[in-house]
Amino acid sequence: MTKYKLTYFDLKGRGEPIRYILSYMGKKFEDVRIQRDKWPPIKKTFPFGRIPTLEIDGKVFHQTAAICRYLAIEAGLAGKSPLENFEIDQVVGAIDDMVGEIGRVRRTEDPVLQQQLKETLINEIVPRYLERFEKIVENNGGYLANGRLSWADLYITAIGESLLGYSGKPNLYEGHPHLKALFEEVQSLPGIKEWIKKRPISQF
Amino acid sequence: MTKYKLTYFDLKGRGEPIRYILSYMGKKFEDVRIQRDKWPPIKKTFPFGRIPTLEIDGKVFHQTAAICRYLAIEAGLAGKSPLENFEIDQVVGAIDDMVGEIGRVRRTEDPVLQQQLKETLINEIVPRYLERFEKIVENNGGYLANGRLSWADLYITAIGESLLGYSGKPNLYEGHPHLKALFEEVQSLPGIKEWIKKRPISQF
Repeated sequence: MTKYKLTYFDLKGRGEPIRYILSYMGKKFEDVRIQRDKWPPIKKTFPFGRIPTLEIDGKVFHQTAAICRYLAIEAGLAGKSPLENFEIDQVVGAIDDMVGEIGRVRRTEDPVLQQQLKETLINEIVPRYLERFEKIVENNGGYLANGRLSWADLYITAIGESLLGYSGKPNLYEGHPHLKALFEEVQSLPGIKEWIKKRPISQF
Repeated sequence: MTKYKLTYFDLKGRGEPIRYILSYMGKKFEDVRIQRDKWPPIKKTFPFGRIPTLEIDGKVFHQTAAICRYLAIEAGLAGKSPLENFEIDQVVGAIDDMVGEIGRVRRTEDPVLQQQLKETLINEIVPRYLERFEKIVENNGGYLANGRLSWADLYITAIGESLLGYSGKPNLYEGHPHLKALFEEVQSLPGIKEWIKKRPISQF
């Protein structure tokens, strides 16, 4: 049996899309969570000094989207043609751009500037993304790509959970009914439903 | 014959990896370059308000890496297995992280802060990435993945050109002989060599 070991912070963040896909696949995985103060001394030992990483039978892989894209093939969540994969990759790229905006704020050192940037993020930047994702889902039969469930849908739902916690706005997805319905569908999928029940609690 | 229309700024930047791949494939493409002052009024008409976009027979696609990954299949620059594609995607993800760092600096509005961030970028952050890419190329037979040419190599070479111009440091790649050799090999490839000769001049 293939052994999976995910290493990330004690957060949802960029780790959660991988945890979602592994759970959907019914795979057991070691869920290593590094506390912030333990990170600096070991940072250098990870590829490009970043996590999440996923070890598959001892081999270390990195980059959340690359990991998900690979797992999605076995999970049956990839496209059925290069063009379908292209559709998925485009929207995942846009999700990653949004995640990059969040990372940019979280890495701002000056706390006053960080708070200013966070307000612009939550009140202006994120809503612009959400509006676009909402339209895509509305026009694609309830999914982000190709009119059916793909790893892009798991990806946005996992990131969406994290973003909700980070934003401090419980009504962040109000006004985006198609997106909200997609999130609820993904969170009810076999494997993911159980994962959400049993996972450690984290704010985002 | 398939019609390609690339829309980007009058820069190399995130557009150049796509121009490289199309040139390598021997495809003719319309190379639309939007001047900065013409961008704000039309920004909203592009997917997620961003460029580059590539129109393929009139259908608009976005996201540089997604576009390159798709074109790479026809170009013969993709992996031969899911695992090979995974290797390529990982390193492209890391290149995109580096590009994100550049974008973060370029989008900083305060010119004094921007200059400070640029110095940290060029003197600390970029060298850390380059050191890692250098090691990967050294350990992979001169390429970024799978021991042979892939779209990741075109991607990093195109981005590397842009970064060189932006940095203002002509010796940026000194001390990274494997990476430099890879750049030179890619820039000598049929199609790309001709493209570099005929393309409009831009600093980065």
